[in-house]
Order: sequence, then C-alpha cells, then structure tokens
Amino acid sequence: MNHRGKIKIDFEPLGKRGDCFTNNSILECAELTGLGINNICGGHGKCHKCKIQIMNEMRSEPTSAEKDIFSPEDLAAGWRLACQTFPDTDCKVHVPPESMTTSQRLQVEGLALSVPLQPNISTYDVTISPPTLANAQADADRLIQTINSQYNLNCDRIDSDVIKDLSHNLRLFNWKCNVSVYNNEIIAVTSSSNSLGFALDLGTTKLAGYLIDLTTGKTLASKGMENPQISHGEDIISRITRIIESPKEAHHLQKVIVKAINRLSLQLCKEINASISEIMESIIVGNTAMHHIILRLPIKQLAYSPYIPAINQSIDIKARELGLHFAQGSYVHFLPNIAGFVGSDHIAMLLSADIRKMDGLVLMLDIGTNTEVSLIDNGNITTVSCASGPAFEGGHIKDGMRAADGAIEHLQITDASVNYQTINGVTPIGICGSGIIDILAQLYDAGVVDKGGKIINSHPRVRKTQDQLEFVVVDEDERSGRTSITFTQKDIRELQLAKAAIRAGIQTLLNVTNHTEDEIQMVVLAGAFGTYIDISSAITIGMLPSLPFNRFKHIGNAAGIGAKLALISYDKCIESKNLPLNISYVELANNKNFLNLFVEALSLGNN
Amino acid sequence: MNHRGKIKIDFEPLGKRGDCFTNNSILECAELTGLGINNICGGHGKCHKCKIQIMNEMRSEPTSAEKDIFSPEDLAAGWRLACQTFPDTDCKVHVPPESMTTSQRLQVEGLALSVPLQPNISTYDVTISPPTLANAQADADRLIQTINSQYNLNCDRIDSDVIKDLSHNLRLFNWKCNVSVYNNEIIAVTSSSNSLGFALDLGTTKLAGYLIDLTTGKTLASKGMENPQISHGEDIISRITRIIESPKEAHHLQKVIVKAINRLSLQLCKEINASISEIMESIIVGNTAMHHIILRLPIKQLAYSPYIPAINQSIDIKARELGLHFAQGSYVHFLPNIAGFVGSDHIAMLLSADIRKMDGLVLMLDIGTNTEVSLIDNGNITTVSCASGPAFEGGHIKDGMRAADGAIEHLQITDASVNYQTINGVTPIGICGSGIIDILAQLYDAGVVDKGGKIINSHPRVRKTQDQLEFVVVDEDERSGRTSITFTQKDIRELQLAKAAIRAGIQTLLNVTNHTEDEIQMVVLAGAFGTYIDISSAITIGMLPSLPFNRFKHIGNAAGIGAKLALISYDKCIESKNLPLNISYVELANNKNFLNLFVEALSLGNN
Repeated sequence: MNHRGKIKIDFEPLGKRGDCFTNNSILECAELTGLGINNICGGHGKCHKCKIQIMNEMRSEPTSAEKDIFSPEDLAAGWRLACQTFPDTDCKVHVPPESMTTSQRLQVEGLALSVPLQPNISTYDVTISPPTLANAQADADRLIQTINSQYNLNCDRIDSDVIKDLSHNLRLFNWKCNVSVYNNEIIAVTSSSNSLGFALDLGTTKLAGYLIDLTTGKTLASKGMENPQISHGEDIISRITRIIESPKEAHHLQKVIVKAINRLSLQLCKEINASISEIMESIIVGNTAMHHIILRLPIKQLAYSPYIPAINQSIDIKARELGLHFAQGSYVHFLPNIAGFVGSDHIAMLLSADIRKMDGLVLMLDIGTNTEVSLIDNGNITTVSCASGPAFEGGHIKDGMRAADGAIEHLQITDASVNYQTINGVTPIGICGSGIIDILAQLYDAGVVDKGGKIINSHPRVRKTQDQLEFVVVDEDERSGRTSITFTQKDIRELQLAKAAIRAGIQTLLNVTNHTEDEIQMVVLAGAFGTYIDISSAITIGMLPSLPFNRFKHIGNAAGIGAKLALISYDKCIESKNLPLNISYVELANNKNFLNLFVEALSLGNN
Repeated sequence: MNHRGKIKIDFEPLGKRGDCFTNNSILECAELTGLGINNICGGHGKCHKCKIQIMNEMRSEPTSAEKDIFSPEDLAAGWRLACQTFPDTDCKVHVPPESMTTSQRLQVEGLALSVPLQPNISTYDVTISPPTLANAQADADRLIQTINSQYNLNCDRIDSDVIKDLSHNLRLFNWKCNVSVYNNEIIAVTSSSNSLGFALDLGTTKLAGYLIDLTTGKTLASKGMENPQISHGEDIISRITRIIESPKEAHHLQKVIVKAINRLSLQLCKEINASISEIMESIIVGNTAMHHIILRLPIKQLAYSPYIPAINQSIDIKARELGLHFAQGSYVHFLPNIAGFVGSDHIAMLLSADIRKMDGLVLMLDIGTNTEVSLIDNGNITTVSCASGPAFEGGHIKDGMRAADGAIEHLQITDASVNYQTINGVTPIGICGSGIIDILAQLYDAGVVDKGGKIINSHPRVRKTQDQLEFVVVDEDERSGRTSITFTQKDIRELQLAKAAIRAGIQTLLNVTNHTEDEIQMVVLAGAFGTYIDISSAITIGMLPSLPFNRFKHIGNAAGIGAKLALISYDKCIESKNLPLNISYVELANNKNFLNLFVEALSLGNN
C-alpha cells in the first residue's frame, strides 16, 4: 500500500494508544508510541523476538517467516511478528511480556490487578468525642465503640503497641484520626490517610518488593534487590549448611534479611513520599528455606531426607516480631508452603492464575535453581520440585551471569556472525539464562551440536581451547581486546543436566496423573527467567514439550503478582490458604521411574 | 449435762471432722480437731471473735452473750459463739473466714472452687506417626492434623515460638507429647503432662499468687509477696507521679514487677516440684494503675481529671511479651477495668460472687487505700471508688502497721486492761486495720470517745502527751521497756476520714439508685482487710450501715478467687468480659451531694 492512511493501535496490557500510518509495521508503530519491543535482527523477521497477538478481526496475511515459527493454530489466534505486520485499520495488539524490552516489562508490573478490591485491611476516618468526668470511658474502649457504631463494625481488640501510644495520639490528633482495622483488631491509629500494602517475593538470590495502595489496588512502586545473604552462601543449600553448623548463623542470617527488607520497603516508600509506618499489611512469599530462615524456624530436618518443613500452613505474625518497621500493629502474612523444596512462592504463582476457571490440563513452571512444576487438572494440582541447578541463573556456565545490565539475553546465530541483544542495550559482559538457551537451540538447529550434546566442529566460530571445544559468542576484537565471551562444551553439559531435570519432572507429572504431553492445553511460564526465555529455543533443546506456540503463556513474576493479589483481595487470601488442600506433592527422590526419564531427557531436540 | 457422750462435728468449709464429747464447747472441739478459731477473751463470750453458724437442726439455747450480739434473725439462722455452744448431737458447723486464725484462713484458699471445671486450656496426650519420603507432611501441619482428628478439635494455629522448637522436640520426645491448646492455638508441646494455671492479684502493696491444677481445678499452692515497687513509691499516686516525671521510670517499674511475678511463680512451682514453664495460662487482676504499669500503658491521662484509663476492656497477651517465663506460647489474661480508680480486681471480686443468682439488693466492698463499692440490684451494678486513704493498712496511724506477724488484729478493752490477739500470736509490734477499728469502736462504746471523735478523757489508759491525748494499748512495762503502743487523737481523726469516705460512698450509691440502707439484703466484704475486720466494730464506728449480722458476709481475697475462677471456668472468663456492660460507674468527684454526705458520715455511731 502506498497511501499513508492514519490508524490507531491500542497496545495492551499497557493501555497505550498510538497514532500510526498504514505503511508502518506494528514494530515501528510501537517505537513511535514509546513502547519497546524486542528486535535483534533489525526488523527482518529473523530473530522471532517481536511476537505479538492481534486481538481483533484485522489480520494480515502471514509472511513466510511467520509461517515458519507459528502453527496454523497460532496464526488463526492472531499471533504474528510485529516487524512483519502492517495493519491497514485500527486494531488492538497484545504484547506479551517476553516480547517487551526489560524496562517496559517493569511498567506492566505496576498495572492495577484484575480482582475486585477487597483488602484485608480497611482504614476509617474517625472523630471521637473527648472524655469528661461525666463520661470517663477509657480511650481504647471509646475508640472501639465509636468506630463500631459509626461504621457498623465488630472491632473487639486493639494492638498492644497501638494502645501504648493511643492516649497520647488521640489528644495530639485532637480526637480525629485514621484507624486501620484487620480482622476486628485495630492495628494502627494515625493522622495520615495512607494505607499501603507491601508484597515481597523473597528469593534465594533476589528480593522483589511491591508497594500497593490498599485503597485503589494499584502498584505504586516496585523494586528488586539482591538478597544480601548471598555473601553468606551463594545458594540456599550452602546457607542451610552454615546454619546447621552454627546456630548463631541462623540469628545472623535472619537479621541480614530483615534489614534488607526494611531497606527495600523504605526505598519504595521514599519513591512515593510515604512513610514505612504507613505499611498496614504485608505478604511475603518465598521458598521454604527462606521462609524458615526469616521466621527463625528449625532448618535441620529440612536439609535431610525426608526433607520435612517445620510448618507448611500459612502464618500470620506481627511485623515487629520479625523486626520489620511497618505500621505499629501490622501483620505479615506468610502464604503456605507445599513441601521442603516447594515454597509459598509457588502457591503465589498458582494464585496468580485463576485455577478454578482453567479448562483442560495446564502446566505451570517456575524455572530457577530449583524448578517447581505443577500440573493442574480440573482444580486438582500435582506438583514436583526439580533440582535444575544454577545454569539458568548463569551459574556453572563459563561466561554465564544473572539477568542484569550487559547480559546477552537473546541472540541469533547466522552463518558466520552473531546478533545479540543485551539487557538495557549496554556492552555485553556475559550471557544470562535465556541467552544460553538461545545459543544451544541455534547450535543444535544448525547441526553444530548433535543430539547427544556434543559439539561436532562445523562452524567458523567454533574453536578448540586447551581442553575442550567452544563457540565464540563475542570475540576479543568485538570486545576491544578483552577476553572473548564463549559457550563451551562443558556449558552444554550443564545445560543438558538442568533441562533434563525439568523435562523429566514434567514427564513424571504426566505419568503419575495418567496424561500425555499433547493433552496439555496450556504451559504457563513464571519467574524472571521464565519470562525471558524464548519458547521455540526451549522446545528445540527439549526442555519444554513440543506444543503449538499458542499454548504457551508467560506471566512474569507470578509469585509477586500472587502476593499482591493476596494483599488486595480477601478471597484470594483465603484461596491461598486452601490451595494446599488440592495439591498432591510428588517427591521425585521417591519415584522409581524418575531416573530413567532423566537420562532420556538429556538428549537435545524433541523426539 | 454430765455424761460424756461422743459426737462428731463436721467443720466447713475445710471439711475437717472432729470426734468430740458433749461437754466440750465447739471452740474446744475445734482446738482438739486442730482447727484454729479466734479467741481473745479465753472462751468467756466477751470478745465475740469466735462466731460460727450451725448448719443443721441442732440448736443450743442462745446465751446472754449471744443474744447481745446476734439479732433474733441471726440466731434463727444458726449463728452462735463457738465458746458458748455445747452440742449434744452430731452437727455441721460453718466457720466463716473472719473467725479463723490467719494460718487456717490460708487453708481455705486452697480448696477446690465451686464451679464446673472447664478451663480455657486443654492438654492432650498425642502420638504422631513419623514422616517418611512418601509422607513428608510438615511437622506442625502433621501435629495439628493428628490432634484434630484424634480429639475432634479445630486447631488452626501454633504459637510462633512453639514452632521454633517443634521439629527438635517432636524428634526428642520420639513423636509422643502433651499438647496444650487455647482457643484453637497450640501454645505448648511438652513431655510433661502437668497443666498449671497461675492467678495473680496484683496489688499496690502486695502480690497474691495462686497456682492451680488446670486438670482438677484445685489450688496447689498460694503465696503473698510484698510489691517491690514499694521502694519506688509507697502508694500508687507517688509511683504514677514518678512515671510522669520520667518515662525511664515506667520501664524500670515494669521490669521490677515482672521480675517479682517471675520470682513468686517460681517459688510456688518449687513448692510442688513443678517448672514455671508448665504454667499454661495466667490471669492477672489489679487496680487500673498497676494494670497500666505492667502493660506499659500510658499513665498521664489517668492521673489528671477526668482520670481516663488507656483501656478498660480485657486484654490477652503472650506471657513472653511481658517478660514472664511461663509456657512458651501461653497467654496472660487481664480482666477488664471499670474506671481510672476501679480496676480488674473489683471485676474479679464481683466474679467471685454469683451475681446472677443474687436476690435483692447486695453491697460489695473491697476496702483498702482505695475502697471500691458496688451496689448490685438484679444484676445491674453501680460502682463508686472511695478515697479511703492508708489508715486501714496502718498508714498515717502512729503505731499502725500492715497485717503482718505481730500486728494486733483484734482486741478487747475492759475496765482497765486490754486483751489482744496478734497475727500468728507473736509479741505485739503495732496495730493493723482491724485492730484500729476495734479500738475506736470499744472506746466509743465505753464513752471514752464522743460522737464527734474527741477523746473525753475518762479511762485509766488514756494519757496526755505533749500535744494530744492518746489511749495506751500496750504500755512500756508490758513491752519490757520498749516504747508503748498507743492510739492517738490524731489516729482517730485519720480513721474518721477513712470511714466517712466509705460510708458516704455507700450512701451515694443508695441515693443514685433510689434505695435505702435497710433494703440491703447482703453486705459482702472482700479483700485481706475486709476479711479481718470485726463487723460489729465497723458498724459501731459508723463505717458500715447498721444491719443484722446475718446480712454480712466475708469472702476473703475475692479478687484472687475471681481470678482463679476465670482460670478454671470458660463461662466465668466470658462473664468477666461482659460484666462491665452491666456496670454504671459513678464518679464521686462529679457528684454534687457527695461532700454533704461525707461531712455527715464523719460522726461515730450509727444514728
């Protein structure tokens, strides 16, 4: 077409609207609108990183590039490449998180959540008549009576720390105040009307915190922070070992993490000019070991077979009992764990999806050092925990690194060169998990690596070092003389072990529930890493089952989303407590077939 | 009668049975049975301290001494003097606490309480099947599930400190343990099956502690201890003043009292070879200021008009939050206060009586530095607080002292000499409250003191010192040269102020409820002091209304009894929380007639 018609494109879920011309691709329109979509190959339909879904009737004829990667089912559902699609009429476009650039993805996390607002905490504006000799009712009794009659509540308790300041505060505030109530208990009496919630995904390596306005349900700020316990043990097992060896260490590690949470929440509050004491409720999710460490629960029985948690069911505890500086009487809720190696972060992930409304068989994965996988079948959940190891977080990989600025997160190997995209577009310094999977998939597809995972030396960028073969991703010249970034034979072995653990876990789930792969209607990928990986690559290396692209869904930091949902929705909070009743946990260490499946799953390719 | 028939006498409430002869008086029978009944005059019917009530048909003809002090109504109800009564058949005798010697009274406090045993805490013997790889349920979840299914309970929580030791303990106890449950929360997991309760009457000058077996309702041990805060201020007002002047003092006074409670409960536990960690529940009652001090509540608004407590309603708090070393997850319950100067000890006193079953108008008094008086009319309670001052505790009285060994607690003035009884029969060192009232009553009866309270100098033991007249109770010779013990004109004035405050308080209650004195069906006297005073003396000086003896009842440390009842009876615990709803507190400082009534009540005599 050569007339430049004006059209409007709505980009979801960010809700941005762009004024575009009909001879622009959707990728170009997005750029004009200020929306970052991945693009490694320069808009030539080669890197396949700009996948989008067109949500209305406007359908452009698929190009050959699109036909290569999408199944007819996917194409019919509106899946296209943004660089290959030139709309000629107004349309609505869904941009999945994995196609967004990093900074854009963060914006998505700030969106209001899609449940009715029904927080556990309510805040009321109260004016009290001052006492006299003729009406000398006690301060707390007077407050409770006033709020109950004014708002038709059934408050019957007041936090023991709140009472300590109540007499002073009521007089200071001249008998006008804001009162926060949780479960019939007055947990804060303030002069501010702010009512904030704090959701935390407490990971082994990273803390992700979210500050929520409990009166609107909106995410006001969010922030990640490295878990400072890393200096006391990179992985959770080494931290557990230290605690078992020295009880003092348990105390120290708890202090360290509490201090970090106080700092993180303080930073979040500063961003919106609020006070940390305005945080009226918190939800913390994390793996079982982190849960035990912050709650000072015993860890020894968790470390040895049969890996028994001290407690799985949900825990409500006053923030101050942990050392957190939130509102005086505020509670922290720990969602339930599932097993020794499946924590409340997995419960939160399940919560983020609307399991009751799921049709057919659904697989949900949170990929990391430990990969938790659940198979959901009509509300019944079966869960396994796969020891996938640190490869996906860059661990044990020669030039591996965490997903941070300068990490190669996606790349495309052509005949002799490599195109890559780094996080935030800065000079490459290493390769993160999604990049590693891309490399292996493309080397396998190009025949450089065989089904068994062996480099068979047929690419200009493969070279032999002292002891092994390696593929040069960024050479010395490209790095202005600094050491090259390479992907080695040993790296491939690490990746094989990691992906086989996951794939064998999936297969075990299917076996114990008497299902087959092709019955899976949807595969939901959660977690930072899950959001970034390229599904085609993951299928190519045999990490995920070979299903139409349309059946895969990235949901970002689902643990964080689940925690936020439990914060703003009483129903979701109750659902989280009841979820474990529907979960059967399958211990892979106790499963006779697992080892067979694991060995089979070491091969690359899918069948 | 001169044949020595053998009969049996049952002494209640101690349940002792004596084999006696028909020519013995009940006083002699009691002595033979090892039961101590007061006796100052040597069994001559003169001191009137051995009042008893015969509970069956056996009635001896009243002697003239008995006719002098008992109304026909009292005599018909079986009231007699033990020294004047010679039973000729088996009988049952009720010995009221005021007629018992001090040590005997303590025995009464150890009796089982008369409510159905229904403690807030239940303890269960549990055997758990150990975890395996195939059944890797968490320890706490496993415990909760086991106890719920085995005992049909609805436990849903476990104390956060109990969880910390649970994994270790379950393995240490080899999966067999005793589990204590309060309100669906597991508060202790132990290897011992002891389940103790601790009731405390936390007074300004004295702590009275009781150790209860929660599985039988029996009092296992009881002990009094001086409140060590006395060194930081003799009376509560001076302590309040110190706290207002220095917030540090609040912290210090709390530490001091908590340390004392730990010590007291430890001593009680040692008496029965138990551990303080076996105390599964505690009830603390006390005046509002002591309540605020131990809970670290603000005190300033309590000190100034309109005297507002921070909180009146009941408070449940973990023992450890106060610094008490009881069972890990155990709670301390503070019964509700009524007003700034009417504390939970008064609620406990009301609780000790079965108010719902009371017929007619009942007056209940807890006499002390502050005297709380309630008028109960068909379940409706009207309460005042009278500033009676320290005279009844021996304060501001020249030779006054607290009720301790060597205090003259009762005495009888004859023409020229004084017979007295000291606490535990040791050499006299001063006069306690009940003794002071006896002296004034007898001096007034003998015409030595006139209606206005003035000594009019007509007794051999009255002498003039430098500045005033005084009555010599024990002279220098009788004390082997040490200073004599006397009762001065100024002492009389102190006593007049004290008793007028109480009498005017009673009259105010009658006025505001439109009742008259003679409508009062029962006057219940509680508290250490209330138990010891001689009612005739109290009526003679005009402190109490002139009603038949039969309408008065001593109930001992009713606050302690009430606290114990709340400990062993869920119904009583609930009743204590609801009692304030039926109480109207009348602030005397705000009552226009009070001052008139007070001035009128200064006179001695009863009309």
